[in-house]
Amino acid sequence: MQSENTICAISTPPGNGAIAVIRISGGHALSILNKIFYPAKQKKDTTYTQNTIYYGTIRENDSITDEVLVSIFKKPHSFTGEDTAEISCHGSSFIQQKIMQLLIDNGARTANPGEFTMWAFENGKMDLAQAEGVADLVASSSSAAHKLAMQQMRGGFSGEIKSLRNRLLNFISLIELELDFSEEDVEFADRNQFIELLDNINQLIEKLLNSFELGNAIKNGFPVAIAGNTNVGKSTLLNQLLNEDKAIVTDIAGTTRDVIEDVINIEGIEFRFIDTAGIRESDDQIESIGIERTFNQIDKAKIILLLVDANQELDYILDTIRKVEKRIEGTNKKLLVLLNKVDMLETEDQVKHIERSIHPIIKTDDEFLRISAKTGKNTNQLIDQLLEAANYEQIQGNDILVTNARHYEALKNAHESLLRAREGLKNNLATDLLAMDVRDVMHYLGEITGDISTDEILGNIFAHFCIGK
Amino acid sequence: MQSENTICAISTPPGNGAIAVIRISGGHALSILNKIFYPAKQKKDTTYTQNTIYYGTIRENDSITDEVLVSIFKKPHSFTGEDTAEISCHGSSFIQQKIMQLLIDNGARTANPGEFTMWAFENGKMDLAQAEGVADLVASSSSAAHKLAMQQMRGGFSGEIKSLRNRLLNFISLIELELDFSEEDVEFADRNQFIELLDNINQLIEKLLNSFELGNAIKNGFPVAIAGNTNVGKSTLLNQLLNEDKAIVTDIAGTTRDVIEDVINIEGIEFRFIDTAGIRESDDQIESIGIERTFNQIDKAKIILLLVDANQELDYILDTIRKVEKRIEGTNKKLLVLLNKVDMLETEDQVKHIERSIHPIIKTDDEFLRISAKTGKNTNQLIDQLLEAANYEQIQGNDILVTNARHYEALKNAHESLLRAREGLKNNLATDLLAMDVRDVMHYLGEITGDISTDEILGNIFAHFCIGK
Repeated sequence: MQSENTICAISTPPGNGAIAVIRISGGHALSILNKIFYPAKQKKDTTYTQNTIYYGTIRENDSITDEVLVSIFKKPHSFTGEDTAEISCHGSSFIQQKIMQLLIDNGARTANPGEFTMWAFENGKMDLAQAEGVADLVASSSSAAHKLAMQQMRGGFSGEIKSLRNRLLNFISLIELELDFSEEDVEFADRNQFIELLDNINQLIEKLLNSFELGNAIKNGFPVAIAGNTNVGKSTLLNQLLNEDKAIVTDIAGTTRDVIEDVINIEGIEFRFIDTAGIRESDDQIESIGIERTFNQIDKAKIILLLVDANQELDYILDTIRKVEKRIEGTNKKLLVLLNKVDMLETEDQVKHIERSIHPIIKTDDEFLRISAKTGKNTNQLIDQLLEAANYEQIQGNDILVTNARHYEALKNAHESLLRAREGLKNNLATDLLAMDVRDVMHYLGEITGDISTDEILGNIFAHFCIGK
Repeated sequence: MQSENTICAISTPPGNGAIAVIRISGGHALSILNKIFYPAKQKKDTTYTQNTIYYGTIRENDSITDEVLVSIFKKPHSFTGEDTAEISCHGSSFIQQKIMQLLIDNGARTANPGEFTMWAFENGKMDLAQAEGVADLVASSSSAAHKLAMQQMRGGFSGEIKSLRNRLLNFISLIELELDFSEEDVEFADRNQFIELLDNINQLIEKLLNSFELGNAIKNGFPVAIAGNTNVGKSTLLNQLLNEDKAIVTDIAGTTRDVIEDVINIEGIEFRFIDTAGIRESDDQIESIGIERTFNQIDKAKIILLLVDANQELDYILDTIRKVEKRIEGTNKKLLVLLNKVDMLETEDQVKHIERSIHPIIKTDDEFLRISAKTGKNTNQLIDQLLEAANYEQIQGNDILVTNARHYEALKNAHESLLRAREGLKNNLATDLLAMDVRDVMHYLGEITGDISTDEILGNIFAHFCIGK
């Protein structure tokens, strides 16, 4: 199909710049190039050499459109696996459009979003999870997200999935052999070994499933709620964090989040600070609305910074903490209770008294910290605790993390079929039914890497790529 | 200097895209590249081959920043004339910034705007007018402007200037020989031939000077005023033109024009439609303000479309036309009188009567056309007249046109010195004074191509380039 087809697109960001790159790939890429490109030093209709750059002019009839550099990548040694040329032209929109027009006039067609990468997938240059890694790589805006995308693009994740699939493959062939000889009632596959294998694979799949929460948070940023009464210093604290040397405020224009949030990049990890209303308002009726709103934000967050004012009534403070602890009970959200405005108390004893009262009601995994949002006291400790809450250590490691909802869903389906197979084995299920469950596991794992794929799946995936990739 | 210096910049437009290109050039370009680039198929610290593309990874310590393609251009066979590498990476802003940081950490510095092109100039890869053509090319948004910039970048304009300069050079050496033998009172340079030469050169310079108005209009768009009473159909006409098949509405975001104007691209030529207030308002006091405002717009325009309503009082129509004709008297502005709303008159005789009255008061070079802004009647003829008014024929030709105010100024200075030399010759001016005037002409012509340049001139020119060019 691709040998009949030739696609082209502007691959660099839109707009004017010093240079722009137009990519053309497909069966006729080089012959179309030959119609409009005049190399300066070769004769026309030259046989291009692989991985070589040619200087020359793009012409429409006798008029020169631009002086360009053309890079040649020959089938199969190109990104798409098809003959490909990259035209590096002057970066005016006018020239970019003009060259596109010339390519189209000579038989190329505009590439769909992600079509170059789709060709790479179809030609076996990369699997589907790797292709998705390419898109994630282009979209990544923090070093942690970049690292995961790079790992995925380079096949780390696919390798894990393929190894699971290969281990099942051996067994399923034995089972299918049994089916062939079903009338003779033989067992080629050792059931105990098979149970062990399934348990083993199940463990690995569960580990991957559990990694999704972290992987997703790394990719999209860790949701953090700053909760607390309206006068307790929430915006002061946020500004403290924003001004921290280590923090980089990330530009999130173009994302589809409905509420504008502050995104802070600390040590390569993005934290999305969700704006929360006060825990309590003065009026009783409004209070319940206030709490409800705050609880909603807390429900969306992975990390909760609960800011309390040391000058407030102690009972009130303790009550607030208890309410939040109760709300997050049974989740794996992390609560950091921050005691603010301690400098306004007269004696250290007063502070100690509050702390002694707070400590017992904070759950084991949660933390307590005395801070001053105004002076920045203990901001560094707070940042360390944020990083810890975000599993900084694990992010620095080389664990494979699931970052993609599609992969998560396929893994969940694989997991269900696996449990069914496991249950069937326990209950001596007929071999043909067992084979069906195991084939399902293989199918779902295959969906991740694209060994199994439909046009619909491919369409969905590549539609979210940018044009020219 | 450049062998000590290594500069780098993101050369593609800012933002996320499929790919981005980072350019590094200078004495240490390849050794800096070697510190961060790991070719996939060669061993590290490879000796790169000219015009060759290398696939590999950019790394920071052991962590992979990106998989990239690197194009190698070796001194002097590169754009700048220095060793240059172009790193084609995935187009995420994060990766672009990261690679820039790695290059800088390893000894490169961020390039100033236009610095790559300035190096190309300093290394004799192009002259100054050609370098300015590069910037014009990137900025050009119509095919006419693109054609002029391309001509200039490829040295067409410089060739013209250099040939003038060379013709003077021969003569000045004879004059300076006379100065060496001044005590012997000989004349090596034939004065009559010299006068002929100066007249000849003067003609060419005047032709170039006169071309600036057209060249400038092509580069920045032809200013067109649509004048006429508020109810006469100005916006209807503008919409007609905007909807014309041939017309392309150009996006002018980013230009520094103080008023938002409609820019329409017809047959590759840009027309900037200046919004004008009505020629007359109902109230007498306001009328004068209205006229003043309209006249201001007319003064800024090169082409004036004066729209009159066939249903208005004939005297009023004629008065309006006379006023505008008077205002543009002695300029080379072009007036197109457009008689609108003729379909609302009852008989063709009525229209003919108006036309017969209008014709005599329109000056020879101006035009009259019966149109309907509403139905689009005669819009094609109007467009033809617009193109004619914009010197469409001349634009299609291959005449050298001056498009740059700096060149215009230098040519004006050269012209003055030339006239002085010519006058001196007539009055038998002393040879040494004559030599000074001719040297001035040479100097000013040399400023255009950069044979004569100062840091200040260079700074001014390249500061207006984009970064990465």
